[in-house]
Amino acid sequence: MSASISPLAPKTTPEVPPVAGVTFATAEAGIRYKGRTDVLLAAFARGTTVAGVTTRSLCPSAAVEWCREVLKKGKARGLVVNSGNANAFTGTKGRDSTRLTADIAARALGCKPGDILLASTGVIGEPLDATKFEGVLDATAGRLASGPWVDAARAIMTTDTFPKLATATVTLDGRDVTIAGMAKGAGMIAPDMATMLSFVFTDAPIAADVLQEMLTKGVRDTFNAVTIDGDTSTSDTLLLFATGAAKGVAPLKAMDDPRAKTFRRALQTVLADLAEQVARDGEGARKLVRIHVTGAVSRKSARRIAMSIANSPLVKTAVAGEDANWGRVVMAVGKAGEPADRDRLAISFGDIRVAAEGMRDPSYDEAAVSAYMKNDVIDLTVDLGLGKGADRVLTCDLTKEYVAINGDYRS
Amino acid sequence: MSASISPLAPKTTPEVPPVAGVTFATAEAGIRYKGRTDVLLAAFARGTTVAGVTTRSLCPSAAVEWCREVLKKGKARGLVVNSGNANAFTGTKGRDSTRLTADIAARALGCKPGDILLASTGVIGEPLDATKFEGVLDATAGRLASGPWVDAARAIMTTDTFPKLATATVTLDGRDVTIAGMAKGAGMIAPDMATMLSFVFTDAPIAADVLQEMLTKGVRDTFNAVTIDGDTSTSDTLLLFATGAAKGVAPLKAMDDPRAKTFRRALQTVLADLAEQVARDGEGARKLVRIHVTGAVSRKSARRIAMSIANSPLVKTAVAGEDANWGRVVMAVGKAGEPADRDRLAISFGDIRVAAEGMRDPSYDEAAVSAYMKNDVIDLTVDLGLGKGADRVLTCDLTKEYVAINGDYRS
Repeated sequence: MSASISPLAPKTTPEVPPVAGVTFATAEAGIRYKGRTDVLLAAFARGTTVAGVTTRSLCPSAAVEWCREVLKKGKARGLVVNSGNANAFTGTKGRDSTRLTADIAARALGCKPGDILLASTGVIGEPLDATKFEGVLDATAGRLASGPWVDAARAIMTTDTFPKLATATVTLDGRDVTIAGMAKGAGMIAPDMATMLSFVFTDAPIAADVLQEMLTKGVRDTFNAVTIDGDTSTSDTLLLFATGAAKGVAPLKAMDDPRAKTFRRALQTVLADLAEQVARDGEGARKLVRIHVTGAVSRKSARRIAMSIANSPLVKTAVAGEDANWGRVVMAVGKAGEPADRDRLAISFGDIRVAAEGMRDPSYDEAAVSAYMKNDVIDLTVDLGLGKGADRVLTCDLTKEYVAINGDYRS
Repeated sequence: MSASISPLAPKTTPEVPPVAGVTFATAEAGIRYKGRTDVLLAAFARGTTVAGVTTRSLCPSAAVEWCREVLKKGKARGLVVNSGNANAFTGTKGRDSTRLTADIAARALGCKPGDILLASTGVIGEPLDATKFEGVLDATAGRLASGPWVDAARAIMTTDTFPKLATATVTLDGRDVTIAGMAKGAGMIAPDMATMLSFVFTDAPIAADVLQEMLTKGVRDTFNAVTIDGDTSTSDTLLLFATGAAKGVAPLKAMDDPRAKTFRRALQTVLADLAEQVARDGEGARKLVRIHVTGAVSRKSARRIAMSIANSPLVKTAVAGEDANWGRVVMAVGKAGEPADRDRLAISFGDIRVAAEGMRDPSYDEAAVSAYMKNDVIDLTVDLGLGKGADRVLTCDLTKEYVAINGDYRS
């Protein structure tokens, strides 16, 4: 397993300012790792609202089930995230463990267990011994501060190769409000699977139902438009907290409030930034691949075709081999099950059109496309020539390193 | 690219007897390869019926489109298969090329072009120069013989590591009729994709519509139950020819003829044998994985869950790493989108139950399961505990060799 930083990592870690109403601290609870932080505790001001999107897996982790209950009320006072154990497929013990964790955190923060959100990532099938949080969360609560964010982002990593942070500032009612987000992506610890966790915080005062609608709309083109290997974790969780602690900003209570559009635009940049960082840290990734589908019969159809290409092992290995193998792209379009007319298809790598009207573009310059494929970021565009449906998804290449990370060990 | 024979190859190549009414020969047409045969020409007795199943890709090859036309009549006098060029995504040139190939073959065999079936596998996007068949097919027609079958199976290989043959004999009306089949599987030549081709021949006299029904029913649990990487070729083709040249056997004209059941059973063993050989020669395969799903709400649901497991890169890399990673199996069940209740799931590797009732089986012996995972053939059973739906699919592990075969080259 390689510990080297992904070559696709951003050159610098962004400076993320404090978010009024949010404090946090990290700790070493020794759940699995030694010598690194593995717990994040965050505390929110009274009145904080929360929205969430969780895995579509029908076998979700105990923490996901816990969050779904808390999200029904839309209020939050605390968040506990641990790495090292996913508390997934742990039966009734898993439920007991989430309850105990929330109890301990609630005592440490002076709130109710039902106001605590939980997320776990790491080993699956191992009961999570929540008694390890006794004492640890109390001590952590004594160190709560408004930064530095990078410590929080590091505590939730499994084998991510870099911490993922993004931020935006937006002016509402003449005042700056802040959005700060972190994510962890396709890390891997034996025996486990990749899990996507992301937490976004703002000091804007936004009602829970509006927050939820913004988040649900926001994920379509960000986190839901990223695929590393087509495998969906039992634990994927994205939570958005709004403390309302920004001074002088009136509560945002409806989507038709004109400020909602302003806020959503900023939120979208943060979600998109984090989602792209997840793709850039895909297991074994050496290239970021942006797949653009145009000319489909609908946006939904474009998404399905883009995902068929993005999840094709043959397309992904070709990109790893720096081969502009458009034949495999045709294959992936053909198997998507969506309307397509072979003889109208056009395919481009970057600005170089390699195929058009159902056959190789006669003017296609092999040397130019070979040079293009050496880039870190590859834009692959497929035009179906049928309608106006368009969409974009992000993925990465499939390298031997992916197989090594996921196969080169024995449990 | 490794030229070594798959460790999962059958120990011996089966002895396949002649099939009355079928003669064939192979040739070197120099389409792409040098120093090996790349064309198979087969001739069928007058009255031969044919049934076929072709790729579900919406971007099929020109040869597939040609076959679909011929199959409408259900009659065949000849078959031309070439390796080295798939004649896929070649636009109008592709159509012209199939027409010219059929013309040349029809002249060589003394029949009509509309009685010739075609299949091509190899490079995609390159026009297939059918003029290369001029002379070659004439000469080949002069050497037609009833064997050896292994030569035919070799001529259609791309980078398959072994020729795939299977046979069965069945008694109808007191007479033995023969079934002989060949297949090529997940081979790879740059820049191309895996393509499955299979041709099965019998001397039984079977009406085309009956033949088609038998074949359509036969593929569900054989070729359609195999996945190497979830990628569907533009060129997949399975053809079944019945010459009717067996002496003393009355024509089989209806599915309710009691002999249909007898024949179908034998046909099924041939299809199943060939399909398993395709899985055993999956690109980079080191282990054959049989995925059994039981207790699903329906057979269709069981198939979808089995395919979700079989196509999961994380499950496949775990098997490559000889890791009984049932957490990833839970993940793949959860993402299938089919009814599942986490707390009723049971998972076994071989006879060893590793998880039950939504958690690790307390009696599970790590050493025993580790030893089991060293086997060449892995049986993975998932019981959903919901109903009576059951199904089985075949796949192979995902190794670094797969990535090397598909990514370690530049076009």
